[in-house]
Amino acid sequence: MSSSSAAPTAKPPMRDALVAAAFRLFLERGYEQTTVDDIVALAGVGRRSFFRYFPSKEDVVFPDHERCLADMTAFLAASAQEDEPVRRVCDAARLVLRMYAENPTFSVQRYRLTKQVPGLRAYELSVVWRYERALAGYLRGRFTDRAGGTLRADVVAAAVVAAHNNALRSWLRSDGEDDAGAAVDHALGYVQAAFGHEAPGHPAGPDHPRGEDGGEDVVVLVARRDAPLWRVVREFETVLGRG
Amino acid sequence: MSSSSAAPTAKPPMRDALVAAAFRLFLERGYEQTTVDDIVALAGVGRRSFFRYFPSKEDVVFPDHERCLADMTAFLAASAQEDEPVRRVCDAARLVLRMYAENPTFSVQRYRLTKQVPGLRAYELSVVWRYERALAGYLRGRFTDRAGGTLRADVVAAAVVAAHNNALRSWLRSDGEDDAGAAVDHALGYVQAAFGHEAPGHPAGPDHPRGEDGGEDVVVLVARRDAPLWRVVREFETVLGRG
Repeated sequence: MSSSSAAPTAKPPMRDALVAAAFRLFLERGYEQTTVDDIVALAGVGRRSFFRYFPSKEDVVFPDHERCLADMTAFLAASAQEDEPVRRVCDAARLVLRMYAENPTFSVQRYRLTKQVPGLRAYELSVVWRYERALAGYLRGRFTDRAGGTLRADVVAAAVVAAHNNALRSWLRSDGEDDAGAAVDHALGYVQAAFGHEAPGHPAGPDHPRGEDGGEDVVVLVARRDAPLWRVVREFETVLGRG
Repeated sequence: MSSSSAAPTAKPPMRDALVAAAFRLFLERGYEQTTVDDIVALAGVGRRSFFRYFPSKEDVVFPDHERCLADMTAFLAASAQEDEPVRRVCDAARLVLRMYAENPTFSVQRYRLTKQVPGLRAYELSVVWRYERALAGYLRGRFTDRAGGTLRADVVAAAVVAAHNNALRSWLRSDGEDDAGAAVDHALGYVQAAFGHEAPGHPAGPDHPRGEDGGEDVVVLVARRDAPLWRVVREFETVLGRG
């Protein structure tokens, strides 16, 4: 993943100053008790400067998500056809974790704040939803040629996000002292085992046929228990395009 | 699943009248242009009656979720130790789908409304989050004794919710005309194939314990795409105990 080694989007000092002032006040007085006027007064800038960087007070709590979403979208758009799709979305999720891990103190402060303020929880859910849709959108594009592709894409994207969040929260609860990278590798490894190339029961052996996306090796068939055998066979043939 | 045959929580007629009036106005004027005063005027009741049933205007858009969440929680709490956990949460998700499917016209209207109004999308995300946490909470209890139990619980819960929502949305896009039950069976079958008892490598044999809810009517078969047909047939027969 090259995005973090590439030149980051320049962060204007005024923007950083606003974030620092906001968090100092949120921690001292509480989020609800802090106004945008308080923040700009402490940062020594005008209200218009605040709203140039942040549409609302909520946005200053999550100052890096827009950049991170843009990085993730660019990372997915730069995927090659030979990238295994499930592994690729796992790597995309690692970009998000890295954003948190780059600044443990800030991430832990925000975690505590978000737990206390319902409005921030709602905001965070909408951010998480956007990450999930970015991952699902990429996977849908990769899975277009298979039956149930959108289902598979949506389920895998949700599983990746849940695994990422599980690792992220356990790292945040350690006050940022655990190894975030190891936690997320473990969590995403579980998802790859369930859905990826390395799924139990369908190991990618050396002679294992690879589809063009490398994930085309397994067919899932759902049948009613009382279905006649001929119908199951016909459906299997249809799914395979052999019928 | 007995919850829907049990006596439902009584729905006072005034509550129904408020929902009907609200939706009539939302469709005629738009959601943002409709006030609580407009709704109570059309329903012929006072403002206090509205707020007795609904904390806010947003809540009248989703009048059945609290009951459905309570049903789901009760259903999960009534689980037996021999219930296979992944199947159990799939059945819990079916309760939610049933709530939608019981009233197709209303569900489709709400779907269109929710797509148009960002505030309602945010509300819906928070509702979905509560369903997901209910499922994850049950699974965490069932998986306490295994390493990575909370990870597994969170990932499976997210996968179930994503599969449910994929089926729900495709049904809503059909204007409620497709078979919602078949769609959700297919979607949840995929999750069970990845995580459940019938996962590749551990097919449910003939002595497989049946849940009390009789949700055993679907078989999930995972086959290699290049598998010979006779092997698929034999595996299907084995799973069914017919072979």
